[in-house]
Amino acid sequence: MSKSESAPFAYDGLDRVIHEKARLGVLTSLMAHPKGLAFGDLKQLCGLTDGNLSRHLQVLQEAGFVEIIKGYEGNRPHTSCRLSASGRRRFLDYLGVLEQLVRDAAKAAGKDAPDTELKILPT
Amino acid sequence: MSKSESAPFAYDGLDRVIHEKARLGVLTSLMAHPKGLAFGDLKQLCGLTDGNLSRHLQVLQEAGFVEIIKGYEGNRPHTSCRLSASGRRRFLDYLGVLEQLVRDAAKAAGKDAPDTELKILPT
Repeated sequence: MSKSESAPFAYDGLDRVIHEKARLGVLTSLMAHPKGLAFGDLKQLCGLTDGNLSRHLQVLQEAGFVEIIKGYEGNRPHTSCRLSASGRRRFLDYLGVLEQLVRDAAKAAGKDAPDTELKILPT
Repeated sequence: MSKSESAPFAYDGLDRVIHEKARLGVLTSLMAHPKGLAFGDLKQLCGLTDGNLSRHLQVLQEAGFVEIIKGYEGNRPHTSCRLSASGRRRFLDYLGVLEQLVRDAAKAAGKDAPDTELKILPT
């Protein structure tokens, strides 16, 4: 018997690096901007302070989810970041587990399950 | 301008008490069993150890999400727990935010959004 059969509500696929609330926002923002985002724009989209965003980006970079590009815009330092290919893939895996959790809970709550699926699968 | 307009990826509704991975499993299990679950059954469904489940149940009880019932089954002590009415309501609120996040990310990833909604709304 596999773990998912014996412990159907364990949700082992919920990677802790991704699951942290602020990092979920960062990854979703970067997913929406595949060419990358300037540090300041990302900060605003996620409602984070400079310090918090820096800390979370470091965790995501060390785990290989994002690439941070430090350069110049004119004479001023300019930092931007983007999702890596493997980061995108792993985030999609995570979203598939999250989608399953929402379905399980909706079913448990006696709500109608949707007719169609979001079809979040690794590409 | 509201916070959600200025910071669309902040996901403020993701209550930290609920969002912890193991507690998400506990709450989903209890949602699926409205009459409550024995400690041992809950432990197995969530793939948790005695110590871990005890710790998470204490956090959930202190935040008003679950009720813990200590009694006897024959001569043996028997602990069970169930979701409180406000716990159920708050968990449904949380699931609505989670559903939005999955939709945002699916849209960002260029996947088809579903035609129907899960319609997870507080009842």
